[in-house]
Amino acid sequence: MKLKMMYSFLNNDIQIIEDELVATIQSERELLQEASLHLLQAGGKRIRPVFVLLAAKFGDYNIQKIKNVAVALELIHMASLVHDDVIDDAELRRGKPTIKSKWNNRIAMYTGDYIFARSLELMTSVENIHAHRILSRTIVELCRGEIEQIRDKYNFDQNLRTYLLRIKRKTAILIAVSCQLGAISANVPEHIHKSLYWFGYYVGMSFQITDDILDFTSTEKELGKPAGSDLLQGNITLPVLFAMENPVINSKIRQISEQSTPDDIQYLIKEIKESDAITRSFALSDRYLQKAFKELDKLPNGIAKKTFNNVAKYIGKRKY
Amino acid sequence: MKLKMMYSFLNNDIQIIEDELVATIQSERELLQEASLHLLQAGGKRIRPVFVLLAAKFGDYNIQKIKNVAVALELIHMASLVHDDVIDDAELRRGKPTIKSKWNNRIAMYTGDYIFARSLELMTSVENIHAHRILSRTIVELCRGEIEQIRDKYNFDQNLRTYLLRIKRKTAILIAVSCQLGAISANVPEHIHKSLYWFGYYVGMSFQITDDILDFTSTEKELGKPAGSDLLQGNITLPVLFAMENPVINSKIRQISEQSTPDDIQYLIKEIKESDAITRSFALSDRYLQKAFKELDKLPNGIAKKTFNNVAKYIGKRKY
Repeated sequence: MKLKMMYSFLNNDIQIIEDELVATIQSERELLQEASLHLLQAGGKRIRPVFVLLAAKFGDYNIQKIKNVAVALELIHMASLVHDDVIDDAELRRGKPTIKSKWNNRIAMYTGDYIFARSLELMTSVENIHAHRILSRTIVELCRGEIEQIRDKYNFDQNLRTYLLRIKRKTAILIAVSCQLGAISANVPEHIHKSLYWFGYYVGMSFQITDDILDFTSTEKELGKPAGSDLLQGNITLPVLFAMENPVINSKIRQISEQSTPDDIQYLIKEIKESDAITRSFALSDRYLQKAFKELDKLPNGIAKKTFNNVAKYIGKRKY
Repeated sequence: MKLKMMYSFLNNDIQIIEDELVATIQSERELLQEASLHLLQAGGKRIRPVFVLLAAKFGDYNIQKIKNVAVALELIHMASLVHDDVIDDAELRRGKPTIKSKWNNRIAMYTGDYIFARSLELMTSVENIHAHRILSRTIVELCRGEIEQIRDKYNFDQNLRTYLLRIKRKTAILIAVSCQLGAISANVPEHIHKSLYWFGYYVGMSFQITDDILDFTSTEKELGKPAGSDLLQGNITLPVLFAMENPVINSKIRQISEQSTPDDIQYLIKEIKESDAITRSFALSDRYLQKAFKELDKLPNGIAKKTFNNVAKYIGKRKY
C-alpha cells in the first residue's frame, strides 16, 4: 500500500494544509527565488503534518485549530532543506563564484530564514506558551544537529553514540514534537502525550537509519542522486560505522577525502553492501521500530492508532 | 558625552545582559566557529537591549523579568549580522571555494540559525502570546528587508519609497519593537506603548539614514572599511538617490557594476560628498529625529525619558 493511501481518511484536511503551504509561498512568489520555490512545490511525504493530525485525533480534533501547527512544522522542515541547499548550489559553479551566484546563495539563505520566520508567525496562533517552549528547544537541537553534521564530515573517529545523537537532533526530535504539538493543540489527555512523543521519536530514528541505508542500497534512479553520496560527501552514517569494524574496509574508508570522486568509492560501496553492515543497520532500525510499536500499544484503539501502525510498518520496509 | 555614559544608571543591569549574552555563546564555544564568536564578543552599541530596559522603566521595572527579552533582541540582531557575513566571507577566498570554506560558510549559516533559535528559546520566558506575535511578525519583516536589499543591488531605478521601506524593515522595526516588548514585559500602561513604539521607529529610521551617510563622510579608519563601500557593493542608499537627481552624476553612477573597484568610484564618492545629497540626507534624518522627539513629549517625565532624549540626540549627531 502506498504511504498516502494509509491516511486517505485525512485527505480533506491534508488538502487544507497543502493549500495553506501554497498560500504561504505563493503570496511571496516575487521574493522567493526559483530554486526554493521548486523545492517547496516538489511535495514530499508530509510526514510531520500528517503526524500532527494523527496525534490530534486522540483529542478534540479541530482542523481549523491544528492546521497552523501542521503547516508550521512542515515549513520548519522546508526551511532546513533550503538552508541545506545553500552551499551545495555554490558547488555547481565551482571555480566561478560570481557575485551574482553569491547573491543567489544569500537570497536562498534569507529565503530559508523567511520561511522559518513565517512558520513562527503561524505558530503564534497557538496560545499555549508550553508549545512554544517545546518548539524553540526543538529548533535549537535541530541547529545543533546540523552544525555537528558539518563539523563531523570526514571524521572517521566518531562512534555509534555520536551518530545516534546527531540523527536524534537532525530528524527524530522534530517528528516526536510533531506528535507532541498535535496532542497539545487538541487537548489530548496528558498521559497520552508521552507515548505519542516517544512513538514519533522512535519512528524518526528508524526513519533516518533507513534513509542512511538506502543511500547505499538504492539505485541512482530511485535516489535521484548517485548511490553512496553521503559517504562521498564525508557523512559517516550507520552502515559506514559498522563496516569500519572490519580493519581492511576501515583503512580503505579512511582514504576518502574531499578530493575523492564517485568512481574512487564505487568499489567501497560494493564492499559495504556485501559486508554485514547493511543487515546490522536494518536490525538497529528495526529495534527502534519495535520500540515505536510498544509505545503505540499504550494508546487507545482507533483509526489514528491503526494508521500510525501502518505508517511505521511502511517506514520499516520502504525501499526509497 | 559618550553613548554609554548616557545610561550609566543602567550599568548593573547592562552587565547582567552582557553576562547572559556571554553565557549563551560561551556554553556553546565548541559549536560556534571563531568568526562568529569574534563578532559576538566584539561588543557594539547594544541599542536594542538598552531600549528594552529604558522602555520598561515606564512600568514595573524588574530586570529578572525583562533581561531575557533584552538578550533575545540582541541575539536576533547578532544572528542577522552572522548571516550577513556568510557570503562575504566566501569572497575572501574568491576563485578558491574549497570544500572546507564551503563548510565554514555553512557552519556560519547554521550558527546564525542557532543563535536565532536560542533567542526564541529565551523569549518563551515571556508568557504573553501577544509579544510573540509582535516578534514573529518583526522577524518576517526583517527577512523581507534583507531579501529586498540583495534583490535591489545595482538597481539604479529604485526610488525614495523603496529605500525607506527597506530600512524600515531592515532596521527601524526591530528598534521600535525593542521599545514595545520592553513596555509589554513591564506592564507599561497601554496608552504609552504606542508612543514608545513610534519613538523607537523614528529613531531607527534616523539611525539607519545616518549610517548610510557616514558610509560616505567617514574615514576608512572610523568605518573599519573603505568609505563608499555600500555603493561599491551596489547598495543604493539615500545619499546616492539624492545625488542621482543630477543627470551628470546619475549617468556616472549607472556605470557602477559588480566589476567596479574602489579606485573606480573614488571620484564619484567625492562628487556625492560635494553635492547637496549629504545635506539633504541629514535633513531627512533630522526630520525623523524631530518626529521621535514629538513622541517622547507624550511620555511621562523621568530618567528614562531624559535618557531616550539624550540617546536620540546622540544618534542625530554621531560621526561614526
